[in-house]
Amino acid sequence: MTQALRHDAMRAQNLALVLGAVGARGSVTRAALAEMTGLTKTTVSKLVGDLIEGGLVVETGAVRDGERGRPGVEIRISGQHVAALGLEINVDYLAVCVVDLARTVRLRRTQAVDNRAAPPVDVIARLGDLAAAVVDEAVEKGLRVVAGVLAVPGPVDMTSGVVHNAPNLGWRDVPLASLLRFPFPVRVENEANLAALGELWFGSGLPDFLHVSGEIGIGAGLVVRGRLFRGAHGFAGELGHVVVSPDGPPCRCGGRGCLEQYAGQDALLTAARTTAAARSAATGRLAAGAPPAGASGNAPAGPPHQAAAAAGPSPSPGMLLPAQQGVSWMLSRLREGDENARAACERAAWALGVALSSAVNLVDPDAIVLGGIYAPLFPWIGDMVADTLKARLGQMRGAVPPVVVSRLGAEAAALGAAGQVIEQVMADPAALLHG
Amino acid sequence: MTQALRHDAMRAQNLALVLGAVGARGSVTRAALAEMTGLTKTTVSKLVGDLIEGGLVVETGAVRDGERGRPGVEIRISGQHVAALGLEINVDYLAVCVVDLARTVRLRRTQAVDNRAAPPVDVIARLGDLAAAVVDEAVEKGLRVVAGVLAVPGPVDMTSGVVHNAPNLGWRDVPLASLLRFPFPVRVENEANLAALGELWFGSGLPDFLHVSGEIGIGAGLVVRGRLFRGAHGFAGELGHVVVSPDGPPCRCGGRGCLEQYAGQDALLTAARTTAAARSAATGRLAAGAPPAGASGNAPAGPPHQAAAAAGPSPSPGMLLPAQQGVSWMLSRLREGDENARAACERAAWALGVALSSAVNLVDPDAIVLGGIYAPLFPWIGDMVADTLKARLGQMRGAVPPVVVSRLGAEAAALGAAGQVIEQVMADPAALLHG
Repeated sequence: MTQALRHDAMRAQNLALVLGAVGARGSVTRAALAEMTGLTKTTVSKLVGDLIEGGLVVETGAVRDGERGRPGVEIRISGQHVAALGLEINVDYLAVCVVDLARTVRLRRTQAVDNRAAPPVDVIARLGDLAAAVVDEAVEKGLRVVAGVLAVPGPVDMTSGVVHNAPNLGWRDVPLASLLRFPFPVRVENEANLAALGELWFGSGLPDFLHVSGEIGIGAGLVVRGRLFRGAHGFAGELGHVVVSPDGPPCRCGGRGCLEQYAGQDALLTAARTTAAARSAATGRLAAGAPPAGASGNAPAGPPHQAAAAAGPSPSPGMLLPAQQGVSWMLSRLREGDENARAACERAAWALGVALSSAVNLVDPDAIVLGGIYAPLFPWIGDMVADTLKARLGQMRGAVPPVVVSRLGAEAAALGAAGQVIEQVMADPAALLHG
Repeated sequence: MTQALRHDAMRAQNLALVLGAVGARGSVTRAALAEMTGLTKTTVSKLVGDLIEGGLVVETGAVRDGERGRPGVEIRISGQHVAALGLEINVDYLAVCVVDLARTVRLRRTQAVDNRAAPPVDVIARLGDLAAAVVDEAVEKGLRVVAGVLAVPGPVDMTSGVVHNAPNLGWRDVPLASLLRFPFPVRVENEANLAALGELWFGSGLPDFLHVSGEIGIGAGLVVRGRLFRGAHGFAGELGHVVVSPDGPPCRCGGRGCLEQYAGQDALLTAARTTAAARSAATGRLAAGAPPAGASGNAPAGPPHQAAAAAGPSPSPGMLLPAQQGVSWMLSRLREGDENARAACERAAWALGVALSSAVNLVDPDAIVLGGIYAPLFPWIGDMVADTLKARLGQMRGAVPPVVVSRLGAEAAALGAAGQVIEQVMADPAALLHG
């Protein structure tokens, strides 16, 4: 390493150190920064100057008399210049948001659209249009979008940006990263991972939890001590394909009886539309405290299960309701006291409880946060999920993880995506600055 | 911090640095150590002197002419003094081993004994006797056992050393750590976690894998980039209670249809003893490519399942065979081509495949290592486990993790326990040295 290279590397490291210290404190004087970082005041002043010039931090007015009795100017993260783009392609909606470096959400747009019917290039083009409009608005506000992250509902090869299989979109081996056309770098990552990070940075503030991202697919993201657990290849957290019943209804993933076939949005809506005859059979079972028919091994499969199995996994395009409409419809049925809707929620919640009991046994989270469509549905599913967990886990463990509701819902993934860009800027601000 | 304390802390850190460098290189001169650690040669010589005096490292003969043409004495980890005790209480055996600091297994003892019938204090007393004999032998070899770790088949509170529930032992809230009487510190940890670490340090050498520890209970340990994943409370990896079929046979954990009820040692042996009538029904199903009866949701439960459900979870003490006898009996039946034994293995392997497909979806391991009783049974279960995984995961993922056999089997946990002591000594050698 030449001396110049060594100097650049050290400067980059110190810029990150100072910016991190500012972020940790909220606002802080140059003198306090020197104390926190162990750098000289001269070095801190030079670095702060560079960060101000790059629009990453800003000086506040004179600080009121502090403990040392020295008035001074404080530095804080600037929300006026650098910004991050969060993007999401999901099965029945697109979402875009812009978050500034001070972590304020400045713009958000969601578009209900059926992405199952469209080839990837068309979906990407539509997302590009939506994003371009939002980026233009951000520019009008004086923001500079420096990078983006795109959330997709399926496992993503983090190196190549290839989506191997997003079964609910019907995508196989789509080289997504290479199809994107943005005037700044955009990485691709799994939706459920990003939703968990969204919850970490913009939601409950818990440091250890399993976030469940319920959409048409169901994903989960495990956060341990403030960090996302990705597994060996970044494919961890596919809760939707955890087995509820090993020869239950076939799943688009190639398996059978996966959680998604019981508690995914399509399965839930289809079950809510079952006939009264099926309903009465199902509620009879539920009232008796047994799990809903169909998820059962010894009991013969009852009609509600078979109805769901027949209609659930492959609804005709005409049946499809965009997520907001679908959940809105479900919520209004539930508020009206509709028995079919209630039974569908109980069945889904029971299946969620079964799959989550496997998850708790395997990964031992401190809490379970229900997000996506489960956030608005929480009043109708939360207790049943918690009760099922308690029945299966209570005896073995001292305490069963609490089941709580996400405050973010469907926008968690796009927020987590933007949050990742901000983490990146905070970790390496030198990449944004000149010389 | 006073100057003396600061000096001690720095010395402790540098001792670990030097010892780690010796361990990483195998054997190395003082000059090379100075280069590797950035410490002065004088400091290195002083530290090496302390490590030699403490018996942690040893000088080898003069090194042959090296690249610098300077003959010198090399330093390596000493296997002659410091040693670690690995202990295991399992349902039907006790195991003890002594491993020296150079990671050579010096002594190992296994005692087949039914610990289900005995109160914890009696089990601990028996373990203490076994350990005392082994420690005496170690002392005769000039070894000093500095600490131990005890593996138990259930989740352990790492802070208090309390075993909340080891259902297969019938233990609830046993304050195990406080009941142990050894002349050196002994920590308690979950058997499955330690078996995975045993596999990491003494087995395949893979850095990323899920190790399945099959005994009467079934646990798993996930190793990611050479580190054990413990979850929020250290209870991760309870594979035996992952759901195979949500209303299958009741499990001692309080749940139903847990993997242990299909693939645990008792379930396996009971299934192998089913009547010919049950067997023919089961093999009929297996031949048709369907999962074994009883793990099924839509199909009515067949006789083999019910037989297992009735006899499996609560075998009478008279029926119990110690692990080695049980597995030996099973192996001889299999070698004779016994159909019952083969069908029992296929059923267990299918259930393992179902539970592991949930595990792969959740934690995304790079490989699956089958240990414990699954190691000797591997020729009869390996393919079925791999095929079930492929059927459920192949379409969704680019590649399904390979299923390989552990080279360690039942002694993995005791080895991992001793290995943990060695890691501790390597991380903080100052704790063993005077002044």
